[in-house]
Amino acid sequence: MQQFNNNEHPHRRYNPLLDEWILVSPHRNKRPWQGQNEKVHEDNRPEHDETCYLCAGNTRANGVKNPDYTDCYVFENDFSALLKEEVNYENKNNALFQLKPERGINKVVCFSPKHNLTLPEMEVFDIEKVVQTWAEQYIELGSHDYINYVQIFENKGSVMGCSNPHPHGQIWAQSSLPTQVEKTQKSLRAYFEKNNTSLLKDYLEAELKKEERIVLENNHFAVVVPFWATWPYETMIISKRHFGNIIAMNHEETKAFAQVIKGITVKYDNLFETSFPYSAGIHQAPTDRVSHPEWHFHMHFYPPLLRSATVKKFMVGYEMLGEAQRDISPEQSAKILRDLPNQHYKTKTN
Amino acid sequence: MQQFNNNEHPHRRYNPLLDEWILVSPHRNKRPWQGQNEKVHEDNRPEHDETCYLCAGNTRANGVKNPDYTDCYVFENDFSALLKEEVNYENKNNALFQLKPERGINKVVCFSPKHNLTLPEMEVFDIEKVVQTWAEQYIELGSHDYINYVQIFENKGSVMGCSNPHPHGQIWAQSSLPTQVEKTQKSLRAYFEKNNTSLLKDYLEAELKKEERIVLENNHFAVVVPFWATWPYETMIISKRHFGNIIAMNHEETKAFAQVIKGITVKYDNLFETSFPYSAGIHQAPTDRVSHPEWHFHMHFYPPLLRSATVKKFMVGYEMLGEAQRDISPEQSAKILRDLPNQHYKTKTN
Ligand SMILES: O=P(O)(O)O[C@H]1O[C@H](CO)[C@@H](O)[C@H](O)[C@H]1O
Ligand SMILES: O=P(O)(O)O[C@H]1O[C@H](CO)[C@@H](O)[C@H](O)[C@H]1O
Repeated sequence: MQQFNNNEHPHRRYNPLLDEWILVSPHRNKRPWQGQNEKVHEDNRPEHDETCYLCAGNTRANGVKNPDYTDCYVFENDFSALLKEEVNYENKNNALFQLKPERGINKVVCFSPKHNLTLPEMEVFDIEKVVQTWAEQYIELGSHDYINYVQIFENKGSVMGCSNPHPHGQIWAQSSLPTQVEKTQKSLRAYFEKNNTSLLKDYLEAELKKEERIVLENNHFAVVVPFWATWPYETMIISKRHFGNIIAMNHEETKAFAQVIKGITVKYDNLFETSFPYSAGIHQAPTDRVSHPEWHFHMHFYPPLLRSATVKKFMVGYEMLGEAQRDISPEQSAKILRDLPNQHYKTKTN
Repeated sequence: MQQFNNNEHPHRRYNPLLDEWILVSPHRNKRPWQGQNEKVHEDNRPEHDETCYLCAGNTRANGVKNPDYTDCYVFENDFSALLKEEVNYENKNNALFQLKPERGINKVVCFSPKHNLTLPEMEVFDIEKVVQTWAEQYIELGSHDYINYVQIFENKGSVMGCSNPHPHGQIWAQSSLPTQVEKTQKSLRAYFEKNNTSLLKDYLEAELKKEERIVLENNHFAVVVPFWATWPYETMIISKRHFGNIIAMNHEETKAFAQVIKGITVKYDNLFETSFPYSAGIHQAPTDRVSHPEWHFHMHFYPPLLRSATVKKFMVGYEMLGEAQRDISPEQSAKILRDLPNQHYKTKTN
């Protein structure tokens, strides 16, 4: 019988944050691809685009004019999925037909007035301003009595459903803990109650010793391809210190966080020399006015590309009905990302 | 305060099969779309394609020649994600780094030798043969002592990662219960233990009384847009009789099942007059040699299209980090599907 090898044999791994398993088929990365190819968008955007509803000074679809902003600019989403109004609802309480109204606020955060930038192409100093804006929004949104959770995220690239290339992210703040956050909280809490330490602190310390899944680090944060990563180049930014939310960061940590955001997104762009699409977002403590010692601030990056700028991983039939599946081992992905240059390919001087 | 309305106000619904919530934002369906459009593939395929590795008589990438099959044809996937071999693995049992080897068998099921057909364009009689083939495979694969679950599914359309338009599906059989199946089983079992009835039987009976989410039905099956559907036009085929797996169906039920598969896929094609992409698959009892009175045979359809043949729903940032979200109410979708003609648009005579 052959000896098991991570990078060769099909296996399942356990995700202790979501309490579920994923399937890893490292040998399958070699299969030929005859399926759909994504479009690569030519990148010759102007610094200001007259037709962009996020550019400074332009008028949006609903007639509102953007100010001449110079750093970040935040406004309420013109097509919010959540609404602020309270509605009157009589709960009929049937186990198979459970429903409840949900209140919330959706915002758009422009990262920069420059239409042709993206996070990896911005200065660390300017990314710091984005982080500060997120922190301000976390406080402001969380101060509403009906807001118990603030989801900060970015969809980058049209393949990730992003409809405007202007550098921007979103914030959805709401009354309930969304499904994935609730699962994560349940796991973090169970671990904390059992061990009286943070799951992610223990996890990160083990990873920093092993080294094989670490992509980059500085004094305050590390970027790791999680042991249980599902997307081919999925990563997680984890804070070295145990704190629960973005407003617990001191000035040095804010800067260090901006640095690793720049670091990982530059590596992503360098991987296939393309503006690398992803959905990314922060998981942190709810704003529900309860103490959350179990929470450990972190940021997920879920990028879909698998083999090239045009071939992505499809999470479809088996993955939807069975479980998430990957075709390259997390260790292989981590090594590939780690070995990439830290300088953005567009600024390379030969 | 306004009175709550299903088709107007944001709300969350509970999925009792997966034990998780989803977000419904019915009012958001009106937002303009400036994002990515999918390609529509022109449908002028020949009945036999020399270059197709699934057509009868052709030679596949690995040199094997397909027989001159006339109905269904099943073979082992040339690029299997799971392998049969047992490997030697020493479990180190660390809570944060859990891994176990997984064994399995992957098969491809050609639905017809005709390259230019799809399920909605096949005769019910020929779809019956597909159902029989699935049943045979469930028995054969389940007879291996290391196979405890058999996932039957189809990825249709390039947007669902399908790399060959020849009508075909897949079967992944494996040692473990995949994540989604395990969750479903847990819910079905808890309900069965508490009520001594099948969750899906009770659910379907309630839906048949309410009528508003039923798309079509015959004597043995109904197609419903689940109360907790996440994809815009998601449906579920549920058997009226309570049985656990595909081999429990009698001849009449097999035929009735083929009929509703044809029925719902024809409506799908008619919705945007396009070959409607989806991932679909059967959830049924494991083959683990244990009795499973809690299981109730059903089939899920997860189609991505939202507004037209080219605009799909993106399950991205908020959906990956928070929870699944939909922009049209399940009741609206059910009505749209129900009102569509039962005859395939390509065979319409004016
Ligand atoms: O096996 P195929 O058709 O090449 O591949 C397709 O279906 C598989 C099972 O859902 C997925 O893992 C792949 O990502 C997808 O491209
Ligand atoms: O709000 P946007 O950017 O128009 O929309 C995008 O992000 C949302 C949040 O992840 C998703 O619900 C949409 O499907 C996606 O297209």
